[in-house]
Amino acid sequence: MTGSIAIVGIGPGDDMLITPQVTAALAEATDVFGYIPYVARIAARDGLTLHASDNREELDRAAQALEAAARGGRVVVVSSGDPGVFAMAAAVFEALEAGPAHWRDLYIQVMPGITAMLAASARAGAPLGHDFCAINLSDNLKPWATIERRLRLAAQADFAMAFYNPRSKARPEGFARTLDVLREECEPDRLVLFARAVTTPDETLQIVTLHDARPEMADMRTMVIVGSSQTRLITRTAGPILYTPRSAS
Amino acid sequence: MTGSIAIVGIGPGDDMLITPQVTAALAEATDVFGYIPYVARIAARDGLTLHASDNREELDRAAQALEAAARGGRVVVVSSGDPGVFAMAAAVFEALEAGPAHWRDLYIQVMPGITAMLAASARAGAPLGHDFCAINLSDNLKPWATIERRLRLAAQADFAMAFYNPRSKARPEGFARTLDVLREECEPDRLVLFARAVTTPDETLQIVTLHDARPEMADMRTMVIVGSSQTRLITRTAGPILYTPRSAS
Repeated sequence: MTGSIAIVGIGPGDDMLITPQVTAALAEATDVFGYIPYVARIAARDGLTLHASDNREELDRAAQALEAAARGGRVVVVSSGDPGVFAMAAAVFEALEAGPAHWRDLYIQVMPGITAMLAASARAGAPLGHDFCAINLSDNLKPWATIERRLRLAAQADFAMAFYNPRSKARPEGFARTLDVLREECEPDRLVLFARAVTTPDETLQIVTLHDARPEMADMRTMVIVGSSQTRLITRTAGPILYTPRSAS
Repeated sequence: MTGSIAIVGIGPGDDMLITPQVTAALAEATDVFGYIPYVARIAARDGLTLHASDNREELDRAAQALEAAARGGRVVVVSSGDPGVFAMAAAVFEALEAGPAHWRDLYIQVMPGITAMLAASARAGAPLGHDFCAINLSDNLKPWATIERRLRLAAQADFAMAFYNPRSKARPEGFARTLDVLREECEPDRLVLFARAVTTPDETLQIVTLHDARPEMADMRTMVIVGSSQTRLITRTAGPILYTPRSAS
């Protein structure tokens, strides 16, 4: 008996941003696996077992989900945002590649979601309206030297930059270093968006210049978007709009 | 009388990927503006006027939409994918900035959607599972020299790369040049995904090495994703999975 596994994105927080495709998969699931706060967003019901696990246990969680599917379950693995952007899809495929051959016979689907940078961008305007990059600033999985080199090249390429996982209690110094590198590569009036807990009741948005950006403006619930050299601010009574024009020199 | 304008994303094609937020905005709209094939996806109903216009008329369309909102309409501007990624949000803000002051009093919202690279990535596995960039290869709005410089720096940064608008009938040579630049910067067995018309009945996926990639594998309905140096292929009877592991050297 072989089941299925769907690796799905439940968006940044607001349930109005969950796609009908994901809602339908959750309605038919026998087992949901995920990080504790994401599984907490899934309604309990008869016939559904919720498997919540701690952060930094992604590979174990992925293997358990694959094994539950191999036993015949209709398994859903939930990530916030999009499962393919710094989330569970890559972890499931790492586990699949390292695991027993019969896992490869499973019916596997990835279902996209609204990733945090798109939600943050939408709330602020359109700072990702031209070429951009997405960088995971967590140095759990790569050395700082790799991050620094990538930051410098991205700034030289004049990408707008979206930073995931900018700052944790365990590694507060990484984001301070990031700002130092950017100040070496970019002009001081470069625009920076700090978008915290977007689309949730805790949402806050702050737009400052690179000169005024401070490490403590970000925590692990914050998406940081650094504009390109072309990114502009429209001032309005109702609040500013941050956007990057479609054309660039 | 002042109305509202919502700039929304209707995803890559499958209606199951339209968020409930966007569906609700469309249900209350008095006017929908957009490029002909996207407006064709919106159901007609009493009280709703559909305004379809041709491609390359984005600024005119944006100005008309803003003026319709200023006259009191509940206006929705539709983009495929996400409105903030190479789509209408930046065009509306360009028009807003250049237009009459009273437009700034409008109630303006951007509603995110599933952008093509996330849908393509999900269909193939998780090629954007680590740091990546998104580049619009259309040279309508920027010189080729800018595109080439950005491509080289992105390759040197070892980003996975998602290319929007890789190839048009009017500019078929641009994507051939792109492949030439990548062949100078990357190893020949670098993995390349051509994902055409994802999530529609016309969908095709093709994964080849950079050595075997050909310009004619892409058209304007194709999203091209070039893996990083770490991107891998899992072979299976049910079809290959393309993914980029979470950790990178």
